[in-house]
Formats: sequence, structure tokens, C-alpha cells
Amino acid sequence: MEYIKNIREKCPLIHFITNYVTVNDVANAALAIGASPIMTDEVLDAPDMQNICNALVINPGTLNQNTVKAMIESGKRANKLNHVVVLDPCGAGATPYRNEVINDLIENVKFDCIKGNISEIKALANVSSKTKGVDADVSDNVTRENLQEVIKMAKQLSIKTGAVIAITGPIDLIVDETGAYTTDNGCREMRAITGTGCMTAGLIAASLVANPENKLKAVTAAVVMIGLAGEFSKMYAKGTGTLHIGLIDELSNLNDSKLEAGAKIERFEV
Amino acid sequence: MEYIKNIREKCPLIHFITNYVTVNDVANAALAIGASPIMTDEVLDAPDMQNICNALVINPGTLNQNTVKAMIESGKRANKLNHVVVLDPCGAGATPYRNEVINDLIENVKFDCIKGNISEIKALANVSSKTKGVDADVSDNVTRENLQEVIKMAKQLSIKTGAVIAITGPIDLIVDETGAYTTDNGCREMRAITGTGCMTAGLIAASLVANPENKLKAVTAAVVMIGLAGEFSKMYAKGTGTLHIGLIDELSNLNDSKLEAGAKIERFEV
Amino acid sequence: MEYIKNIREKCPLIHFITNYVTVNDVANAALAIGASPIMTDEVLDAPDMQNICNALVINPGTLNQNTVKAMIESGKRANKLNHVVVLDPCGAGATPYRNEVINDLIENVKFDCIKGNISEIKALANVSSKTKGVDADVSDNVTRENLQEVIKMAKQLSIKTGAVIAITGPIDLIVDETGAYTTDNGCREMRAITGTGCMTAGLIAASLVANPENKLKAVTAAVVMIGLAGEFSKMYAKGTGTLHIGLIDELSNLNDSKLEAGAKIERFEV
Repeated sequence: MEYIKNIREKCPLIHFITNYVTVNDVANAALAIGASPIMTDEVLDAPDMQNICNALVINPGTLNQNTVKAMIESGKRANKLNHVVVLDPCGAGATPYRNEVINDLIENVKFDCIKGNISEIKALANVSSKTKGVDADVSDNVTRENLQEVIKMAKQLSIKTGAVIAITGPIDLIVDETGAYTTDNGCREMRAITGTGCMTAGLIAASLVANPENKLKAVTAAVVMIGLAGEFSKMYAKGTGTLHIGLIDELSNLNDSKLEAGAKIERFEV
Repeated sequence: MEYIKNIREKCPLIHFITNYVTVNDVANAALAIGASPIMTDEVLDAPDMQNICNALVINPGTLNQNTVKAMIESGKRANKLNHVVVLDPCGAGATPYRNEVINDLIENVKFDCIKGNISEIKALANVSSKTKGVDADVSDNVTRENLQEVIKMAKQLSIKTGAVIAITGPIDLIVDETGAYTTDNGCREMRAITGTGCMTAGLIAASLVANPENKLKAVTAAVVMIGLAGEFSKMYAKGTGTLHIGLIDELSNLNDSKLEAGAKIERFEV
Repeated sequence: MEYIKNIREKCPLIHFITNYVTVNDVANAALAIGASPIMTDEVLDAPDMQNICNALVINPGTLNQNTVKAMIESGKRANKLNHVVVLDPCGAGATPYRNEVINDLIENVKFDCIKGNISEIKALANVSSKTKGVDADVSDNVTRENLQEVIKMAKQLSIKTGAVIAITGPIDLIVDETGAYTTDNGCREMRAITGTGCMTAGLIAASLVANPENKLKAVTAAVVMIGLAGEFSKMYAKGTGTLHIGLIDELSNLNDSKLEAGAKIERFEV
């Protein structure tokens, strides 16, 4: 289990087309775990940037018509080069345009991992079947009670897209067609910091590049990394400002011993 | 006086079209006080985002021709839905294009609050009468000496726009046609952090959504919140970096008892 | 030697067209050293912003077709007004479009300083001769061994562009046609924070505005400022998150005594 050591040794070069809200944290989190981030979202520039990178992360949080073109063209280029590609469908289900863009992304780009909160993933399941909107019938939290139901939905989405599906929240759930893991790391207070999800997508990309043998485990390890960093930071944080900075500190100090000692992972059949 | 309790209970969903310089702090400050931020500035996406939100904050700090369209269309939608709308006329008076945009915003969107520094508000008073530029004849600071004069200008702008006018600075001034408050909270060092004004606009939107009974008081409370957070943070800050992070910490720890104990508010007739 | 005192007294107003990844740090670093930052990248707005500024910093890190127009037009305006103009050729050499844009910038705008890492400066040397791409034959680090060779290349670029060339890295090198300085300040860990280079460009602009007598020395002083802030911050940082915040703290507490006491500068002939 040398997930982090492998990242720090291979130093994956990750190209992000991500929202401008949390982009600085995304870059610093990637650096803290040992990866190297590059951000560009101009269609004349972004696809070519893939030529020198190992991975692409697409997050349409603050999408616009120009950056959407860059997302699709960069995604196609990354696929052609067999690079790791991660989708963070930020805000899926919130507006028709956003749903349309995410639908286009899934139709045009093959993703190794799709990571979102439960509402986004549920919206995505619908978006990809072209019905749009969020299914309001299913509870919006992953709980011990609805776990099997959510795993089933995620497995279907994984089969349809070929991606590992990571659903982050109080209980994190990582699913593909071969199995599922839950992780119970992290702390409630992390919800009061913007960007923990966006940072997670970068850690996932880094982990997938450096640990290609088992995608499901590589994604799970990345989800545990941010969770543990949050737990450690919470021990001394004086509020959400220092929790936020401590998260980066703890990512920069994280290693595989801490990961193995702290990970609260459970495996489920699918 | 349960301004903050009301925010934390109602958790207003606030849509920001704001500059990319301070957007992360704006989001984290909104979260720290108990609101929930969403950022999008694409005209195909932003107006629809209002459908699931409670408020809109427009800050044209890093405006461009595309985001300006999103500002106007989102503002119209917010008005149609009777949502709280706040304008932070960032950089008003600095260039002709910026003045033109802010003029268009005021002509097309009804704002509940317009918050700026004294130069911006003065520029705005002129912009809205189509003369443009900053009136250099009036001192650029609100002082005890020119207070009545500034209140008079702000009252006129409030009558013209229907918005509460919040002028932030060493002395903060909050004015509508019914009355005026000054607040003396905050610290000098806050000027050496970018974004305290942008964050204030978000706190104002949150306070207005959660405390709709008295807009003048709700805006004043929000202005005190950021001021107090700055005062508390300053007590242990080692420089402007930790002052900045402490500001978010203190917002996340703020409550109505602290607000009532610390507020330095004075009421004036208009 | 009153480099910092001069900045704090003159408080240069610096217009940045810079990437959205590190823009908040760039603004806070400029404020911390005593300058005043303004960010705008819309071509209808940005050139006019030069009318009220003292300097322009261009960093095409997250360039797009619209902001590139603003870069060129603002650069021309800044030249017309005899303002300080600094180029940070972020990512030079990475893609053909980026090389083309940087080439256009150098052909259309006269820069007082061009600051990059060794790969960017080497790419730039080629770009300006229209051959594009990074010369892979020369080692990518400035060392005691290849110092004379790198100084020669930088001197040629300085003669061609009229700019002071600042190459940042483990050893920083500042060169024009009259002489060269190396500085040995900073710490390894700064590489694990995004934006230290971008912040440096702002400090350089501030220093050039406030210390116009000797450009080579003014740029060197700015490079030492960020290095010293990193050294001081490292003494108590718990990871890369607190190193990052401490960097801003230390810039805000920096003065000319600390600068003189801590600077590790060596002069070389060219």
C-alpha cells in the first residue's frame, strides 16, 4: 500500500479545467500530495496542454461557453493519449444548461472516475438518460439504510460510463462494477469549507496516475486522504479558516503509514 | 436580535456573480456565517440558478462582456422571483466602461442594498445621473465632520434606487430614507487584505434573506459582523496572512451574543 | 537602501492581468508589501484602468482569447503612459498558442522586466526568435556550473527586449546588459506552494515604481523580499498551508533592515 509514496515519486502532471472559486486550493492540494497542477481553459491552448500532462480533471462549476469547448476538446485529447480523466460534475441538476453540458461531456469523453455529492451523482444518472433534473424521491444522504440502493444506482452509472463512481458525503461511497467501498473519514466541519470536493478530484487523478493497478482502490485511497487531512486539521483548528489551511498542511504531511492507520474503509459486494 | 441565529437556521442559498480575485474568501465567509454560496456567471446558466436560490450578489470587479450579460439577466430573474439582490459596485468611477455597466445594472435591476466604499458610492451617485466619474471636490473619507453631507448624498441615492446604501470604511455608514446608522467596528489592518468588502456583500445578502423585517438593521448587522471578526482576528494575527484566515475563523465562531456585546452602532436621523 | 520604505510610502497602484489560480495571493502579497492591486482583464475596461495606475503586470497563465486582447491593449497603453510593465511568461514553451501569445506580447509591448523560471525564460528566448519550444539541450536548473552560460543567454534576451531578466529558482538570477545578480534566498518548500512566482512579479512591479533609479537593483530587491518571507515563514510553518499564509504575514512585516540583513546577493559581470 504505497499510494502516497507512488504519487510523490511519479509527481503526476495534472491539467485542471476547474472553477475559479476553489482553484487555488485545488492547486495547493495537488502540490501538497506530491502532484503538479496546470490550469488552462482556453480551447486554443488546453487540448495541447494534455500533450505534456498525465491527467485531466474537468469541473464545470463556473463553466462558460468558451471553457465548455475546452473541456470537451481536452477530454477527447486526453482519451486519445490514454490519460487519466476525472469528472467532478459540480452543480449537476441545478440548471438545464449545466445538465446539457455534463451530458455532452459524458457522451464525448470517457472518464476513469466521476466524483460528486449524492445529489450530483443522482442528477447525473438522469442526465445521462436525458431526463434531466434531480430525482427527489430518493433521500439525499447516503445512510446505512439506503446504502444498497445507492450502490445499485452507482453500479449502473459505472457500467454505463465505464468510470469508477465516487459519492462523497458523511459516508463516502466508491463503486464500480466489481465492488464498492465506503469510507468514514473526514469531519462534519469540512462542509463549511468550499472546495474539499474539488480538491478530492485532484487527489483522485493523482492517485489514479500513480496507482494504476486497481482503480477502485486508488480512488478510495484518495478519498481517505482528504478525509484524514480534515480529521487531523480539526484537532487544532480554531474555526473554518484554520481548518481550511490545516487541511493543506496535513495533506503535505500525509504518508502511507498515516493513511493505513487512519483509513476507515469497509468493502461491499455489488 | 437573532441576526446570526436566523442565518444559520435558514441557511440562505446565495448566488454570486463576483470577481475572481476574492471569490474563494467570499464563498468561505458566506459558509462561515451559515449561508450557502453558489457561483456561476454564464448567461445560459446564471439566470436559471436563481430558481433554486434565495439571493443574488453582483460584483463587477473583474467584469467582462459575457459576465455582464449574466449579471443583468440574473438580476432581472431575481427581481421577478422577489429575491434579495445586492450590488457591490467594485471599482465604480475607475473607467468609462465600468461606469456604463454599473449604470445599466442600476437601470435594469432593483437592488435591496448597494454596498461600496465612499469613492464607489460617490461615483455611483454620478453614474446614475449619467455624468460619470468621481466627484473630486468632496473629501474621500467619511468623518464626523462631513457625516451629515454624506448621509444626505446616500439618502438621495437610496431614494433614487430603492436600496439601502452601505458605505464601508473607517466609519461605516448605512442609510436609507428612514434613517442612518454608523458602525465603528473593524480595524485599520483590514484594508491590507483584499476582499473584506466583497465578503461583506455576501454577509449582507445572507442577513437580508434571514432578517427581512428591517432591511436597514439587517444590513447594519452584517457590516458589524465583518468588523467584529476583524477586531477579534487582529488580537492574535501575526500579519495580514493570519489576519485574513482569522477573519474566516471568527466569522465561523460568531454568534448574536458577541454581536450585541461588540457592536459599536450609532443612529442618526436623515 | 530603502526599497520597502519607498514602496510603502508611494503605494504604487498596480494593474494585474493575471491567472485566476493565484490572483488572490498576488493581490494580498502586493498589499502586504505596501502596494495597491487592481485586477481587470476585459479589453473594454483594462486599457483605461492604466490611466489611474502606476504599473501593469501581465501573466498569461490562464489566458483566453479575450484576455489576450486586454493584455496587448493594456500593455500598449502602459507604454504610452511610461508606466512600469512586467511580464511573467507563465507556461511559456508548453503549447504553441501560449508561445504565439507571448511572442505577440513581446513584439507589441516594451517590458521593464521579464520574470520566469529557467524553462520559461529559455522558451522565451526561442519564441522571440520564432523557433518555439524548449531547448532540451541545456540543463533546466541554474547551477554554479552553468551560471555563465545562463547569464549570457539572459543578457542576450535583455538586449533584445530592453527588459531586466529575472530567472527564479533554487538560485535566482537577475540580469540586464550592465550586470547580473544572483540571490540565494528562499527555501525548497516554496516550490510546493502555487503562486510564489506570480507574487514575485507584483513585488517587482512595486519595487520598480518606487525605486526607479536602478532597475537591476530594484528587481533584485523584490526577488529577495519573497525569498526572505519564505525563509522566515518556514521557521514556524507546520506544512505548506501555513507556509503559504506565513509568506503573506512575513511580507507584511518586512522592512529594509530585515532585507539588508538577510539578503544573500552576489554580483557578476556580464
